[in-house]
Amino acid sequence: MGRWILARARVTEYRLPIRVYIEDTDAGGIVYYVNYLKYFERARTELIRAMGVDKTAVMEDGSVFVVTSASIDYLMPARLDDCIEARATVIGSGAAKIEFEQAVVREGVELARGRVSVALTDGASGQPKRMPATLRAALKANENKGEVNHDG
Amino acid sequence: MGRWILARARVTEYRLPIRVYIEDTDAGGIVYYVNYLKYFERARTELIRAMGVDKTAVMEDGSVFVVTSASIDYLMPARLDDCIEARATVIGSGAAKIEFEQAVVREGVELARGRVSVALTDGASGQPKRMPATLRAALKANENKGEVNHDG
Amino acid sequence: MGRWILARARVTEYRLPIRVYIEDTDAGGIVYYVNYLKYFERARTELIRAMGVDKTAVMEDGSVFVVTSASIDYLMPARLDDCIEARATVIGSGAAKIEFEQAVVREGVELARGRVSVALTDGASGQPKRMPATLRAALKANENKGEVNHDG
Amino acid sequence: MGRWILARARVTEYRLPIRVYIEDTDAGGIVYYVNYLKYFERARTELIRAMGVDKTAVMEDGSVFVVTSASIDYLMPARLDDCIEARATVIGSGAAKIEFEQAVVREGVELARGRVSVALTDGASGQPKRMPATLRAALKANENKGEVNHDG
Repeated sequence: MGRWILARARVTEYRLPIRVYIEDTDAGGIVYYVNYLKYFERARTELIRAMGVDKTAVMEDGSVFVVTSASIDYLMPARLDDCIEARATVIGSGAAKIEFEQAVVREGVELARGRVSVALTDGASGQPKRMPATLRAALKANENKGEVNHDG
Repeated sequence: MGRWILARARVTEYRLPIRVYIEDTDAGGIVYYVNYLKYFERARTELIRAMGVDKTAVMEDGSVFVVTSASIDYLMPARLDDCIEARATVIGSGAAKIEFEQAVVREGVELARGRVSVALTDGASGQPKRMPATLRAALKANENKGEVNHDG
Repeated sequence: MGRWILARARVTEYRLPIRVYIEDTDAGGIVYYVNYLKYFERARTELIRAMGVDKTAVMEDGSVFVVTSASIDYLMPARLDDCIEARATVIGSGAAKIEFEQAVVREGVELARGRVSVALTDGASGQPKRMPATLRAALKANENKGEVNHDG
Repeated sequence: MGRWILARARVTEYRLPIRVYIEDTDAGGIVYYVNYLKYFERARTELIRAMGVDKTAVMEDGSVFVVTSASIDYLMPARLDDCIEARATVIGSGAAKIEFEQAVVREGVELARGRVSVALTDGASGQPKRMPATLRAALKANENKGEVNHDG
């Protein structure tokens, strides 16, 4: 399929079911708000995997994806034993950068939503690094241009 | 001192020293980016404590502070065994809301900076709730109006 | 079915598939050893749920299950992106206590194994509390008396 | 001082003060029991540092300390905002192994105690590896032979 891409897939949004365990909660009796960023990342990881990106090849190349910024709005709390869904979609990408829109949803209701920016960097220097053309093409093909359905 | 306020203190910024342990890191060999939000919260907690807020009284009142939004930019990675500093300052407040500016710094160099919004809510209903006048006054007195020194 | 038991089920062992995410790893490049206890708990939680225990009824009763001791041996490391399995089985139970045998397995190979003891307590006093007869019977019925297959 | 040892120090026990933050708690309103193992590790890390072990040299040597087993008994819960103390002491050591006794204490009262075994391994192969004589001597010199004071 070309550098770093194992398969050609069309996945404009990934929805990962997640069960809330006690490890996710805090003394307020709800999910500790920081952990939503972990849920976001699980969904991003599965989206990238579903898009056919070969993480082993990325690593062997000495390249590392790093989060450069994140923002999140909290709308409703998730609770112990809830079955929730973490969602990730690519809403933009550049030479060295991917922009994700993310959400955590319970039974069609958004509990949190946010944006996460990821950059490809050289593992040794930490400097931004151009993504291979095949990866850029895969990202462009799967980019979501506004059709994300926030109603669940 | 008045409702929820145990002492009168002037603390426009709190700087909390933190040692990075293995629990904070990830397979990239650096601090897992999600954990900066934990560092932010530790500094906020100490700032609120230093301002004389009586958390026990807040809880006995059935009130809960919840994070409503957070945003963070990652500039440089922290590493295992680093001695870093988490910083928190109040940059705005309303009837039911506090806005913090936050940073993680290592030897005067910013590794991450962000904003966190916190609301006072009724623990049972989850609805926003006006803060007592004494707390609002304490927040206003300690609000930072631009004099935060980002050079460390 | 009787107090705290929603259904009658025969589940001598629960095997929960888990994907390893970056949040689970540490700077050693492997799963942070402390997190195996989280994997253990996820499997215990699902075992208890599969046995038909009504956690809502437990909570409404003012009762809390607490971990009183845990031990774990680490045999092989799990790594980023691994698909592993957390296992839980009841190997003993008393008036107020449940003893679990646990393991984390990857492709039939044990990575970690351990024991976890849980006690039922009164949430307010923290004192041990007898479990309802229906729960004790369910535990006895599902107790594993040595037939756990460690070969995967 | 010799291989891996930067300084000669006599530290039979390390006591690390720790503040409990919301990140440490769970929906039971107390410290999530798994996190005591993190507290244990922080104290072990500081004990090793205080003993003068040069972790950079260990890493440059391609060696890694890994936890091979852990056991813990939970006696009393720690709560949000508590000031607790994590303690670590070496109670035994061999060619490739260190055995620690650990505790978490609040105002002189033990909340948890346990044992953790650590092995030196070759980072590439994962095989156990003999510690340098200087490190073994440092461990022996600081070994605690029963004089740990559990009364706080």
